[in-house]
Amino acid sequence: MDPAVGVGLLGAGTVGGTVIRRLVNDREAIAAKTGLVLDVRRVAVRDLTKQRGFDLPEGVLTGDPQAVVEDPSVQLVVELMGGREPAGDLVLSALAAGKPVITANKELIAARGPELIRAAERSGVPLLFEAAVGGGIPIIRPLSETLAGEPISRIMGIVNGTTNFILTRMADDGSPYDVAVAEAQALGYSEPDPTADVSGSDAAAKTAILASLAFGTWVGIEDVYHEGIESVSTADLRYAADFGYVIKLLAIAEHSEEGISARVHPVMLPRDHPLAPIRGPMNAIFIESPSIDELLFAGPGAGGEPTATALLGDVIDAGRDLLAGARVAPRIRFVPRDLIAFEHVSTAWYVRLEVDDRPGVLAQIAGAFGDAGVSIRSVRQEGRGSGATLNIVTHRAVESRQREAAFSLEKLDAVRSVASVIRVEGDEP
Amino acid sequence: MDPAVGVGLLGAGTVGGTVIRRLVNDREAIAAKTGLVLDVRRVAVRDLTKQRGFDLPEGVLTGDPQAVVEDPSVQLVVELMGGREPAGDLVLSALAAGKPVITANKELIAARGPELIRAAERSGVPLLFEAAVGGGIPIIRPLSETLAGEPISRIMGIVNGTTNFILTRMADDGSPYDVAVAEAQALGYSEPDPTADVSGSDAAAKTAILASLAFGTWVGIEDVYHEGIESVSTADLRYAADFGYVIKLLAIAEHSEEGISARVHPVMLPRDHPLAPIRGPMNAIFIESPSIDELLFAGPGAGGEPTATALLGDVIDAGRDLLAGARVAPRIRFVPRDLIAFEHVSTAWYVRLEVDDRPGVLAQIAGAFGDAGVSIRSVRQEGRGSGATLNIVTHRAVESRQREAAFSLEKLDAVRSVASVIRVEGDEP
Repeated sequence: MDPAVGVGLLGAGTVGGTVIRRLVNDREAIAAKTGLVLDVRRVAVRDLTKQRGFDLPEGVLTGDPQAVVEDPSVQLVVELMGGREPAGDLVLSALAAGKPVITANKELIAARGPELIRAAERSGVPLLFEAAVGGGIPIIRPLSETLAGEPISRIMGIVNGTTNFILTRMADDGSPYDVAVAEAQALGYSEPDPTADVSGSDAAAKTAILASLAFGTWVGIEDVYHEGIESVSTADLRYAADFGYVIKLLAIAEHSEEGISARVHPVMLPRDHPLAPIRGPMNAIFIESPSIDELLFAGPGAGGEPTATALLGDVIDAGRDLLAGARVAPRIRFVPRDLIAFEHVSTAWYVRLEVDDRPGVLAQIAGAFGDAGVSIRSVRQEGRGSGATLNIVTHRAVESRQREAAFSLEKLDAVRSVASVIRVEGDEP
Repeated sequence: MDPAVGVGLLGAGTVGGTVIRRLVNDREAIAAKTGLVLDVRRVAVRDLTKQRGFDLPEGVLTGDPQAVVEDPSVQLVVELMGGREPAGDLVLSALAAGKPVITANKELIAARGPELIRAAERSGVPLLFEAAVGGGIPIIRPLSETLAGEPISRIMGIVNGTTNFILTRMADDGSPYDVAVAEAQALGYSEPDPTADVSGSDAAAKTAILASLAFGTWVGIEDVYHEGIESVSTADLRYAADFGYVIKLLAIAEHSEEGISARVHPVMLPRDHPLAPIRGPMNAIFIESPSIDELLFAGPGAGGEPTATALLGDVIDAGRDLLAGARVAPRIRFVPRDLIAFEHVSTAWYVRLEVDDRPGVLAQIAGAFGDAGVSIRSVRQEGRGSGATLNIVTHRAVESRQREAAFSLEKLDAVRSVASVIRVEGDEP
């Protein structure tokens, strides 16, 4: 039996180019370790004339992605085009032809997951997307296989390296937001347009995938509430540090008493939380459940090499099944369940207020929280004289009540401004 | 199609009992999430009269493990007897009958891995052992699947929770070794006989498995050099803390320029190393490679619940393939490669010496290191007067040279005693 498996790639940018280089350069090493010879047979690129960091035989590059999918010598398709279309239809077309698909396309999976998974199931071939979340960190497979029987209660993750880098720089050096963003761009941690990162929408797609696998019910990207880091200031980071917290943009997928929810927003996290030391462009995923208590996975969340490692692992996995002629049993299954809207999720808030410094002000403010049904965990006042800064951390209450409290605060005469609102997770430092 | 899969268990102690309770109690939840009904059909126990924390129908319990393996209603076997025999022959007999085997038996895998894996391959069924290393931490699957294409350079792990608990107690409270061991026993972190834990032999079996999967070559338990924690003193922990280190019992599997090696011994690790904050009975595995740089997996390394979670994940995985009638392609493959003996591995040493405090002593000591070909990274002297304590950290040199230096030191007149020798990993704090 010829142990070679023909691989086709859709896209050959940073990640795709790295995958191709490693398939070509590590061919012998991979064959020795896995018994699998992986041949790059067809690669679709946008620009056929562009110089690339790999050498492939004449005729392998093509401008037509459908030709890669249809090429009879291609047995396995690696989709790296990104975006929903035409990637989605190409993936469906490969699966329908009985070709396993490996993808890093979080946006596509978070938008059309169930449809793609059903298509894979119908053909008995795998659809693998380890690289879609957490770059080089193995998380998709542990969630859908090792933890398949686990009643996971919560996942909290740092799943966007760009924003984690920006927040780390702002915290370390007091760099203003714009300066830190520019630095992330200069170092290649961010796309030229950082919107998807800083707005939290990249993290939201990854959160949808994590939540879907953790709870066995489909959570689409539109079900994930998200806020970005645009409004986090160096003052916020300074105050957080003074009180023993760090600020992280977190993906949070929860199965609480109220139900299943998924969200992305900045969070104040106690300095001794396992996610607090995850710095710079690193990613980490923290899983809580009654039986395993706490699991932490940490590593490089992005970049060509780590993402290529995750893709290669999936390619090898699918290749082994192809060679063995194995029909693959579905690892992912979704049961319809109700999701709860973010307004009904319980959160704790940090609120920083600029207020008049005169008797009775705290009573008014405490009253506004109390009327909304929110109780206060701690208050610290700074500054005296004409005005003062109040740092308030509340106990958990449903998000809609917290918002009601904030709305009432804004209308109080003594409150000059609600300077900041950041949600808080974890125990008090 | 009847979606039920018949499960047989060999052993129903702490872990087995937990697996059975969860299979019975979470039956509906697992079925909803995975589409798989798991039926406990036969369980072999040593004592049929013993009261257990689960209820099973009449006739399910048996004193004969072979009856479980042979029972036609048992499609999948979970081996939890521990030890090499009779577990090994029972596993082989199940695999030969085409029944997938799930085991947590690190000793068996580390002793007879290749033979068992070949038997599984011949029958086209999986032999899964996620629970054998790291308890509830998914590590076997990430290593053999996600990282299959990765040229891993080093794995360092805290893979024995008992010794990590003991070292944590000794460091935190200055508890003497015996007191900390007794506490580990009282809390159920250690077996009544703690020898396998404190001698490093439990960790050695796990190291053999990690090394084999990481490097794709068979490393048996007899290939793993091991030392335990019996000789680590509270003084060692105090000195380590003074110099910015912690002491951990580490599993180290390396693919260096010299070759592949695997070992277990106490290590001084800088306080800012990712493994340093892993405290108490927790486990963690740290993987280094050129493409992913660094990956950390941390979680509960032992205990009925976490280990049962890993076993259940494997049971579900094998059950999915059974139901789908899928023939399973082998995920593990070993290519013969030379291993290097520990004497040829490069290590850095911390050496504490009690010496006469007089001129020329340091020159003699430095000479002993130099003559052995070991260069010194740092020296700190404490105490003056009749005697002094010298704390020496060396640069890396092959183990045999380090030993030669220590041997020469012992013979020097000015050296009253070599109070301690601990290997050092990581950068200088």
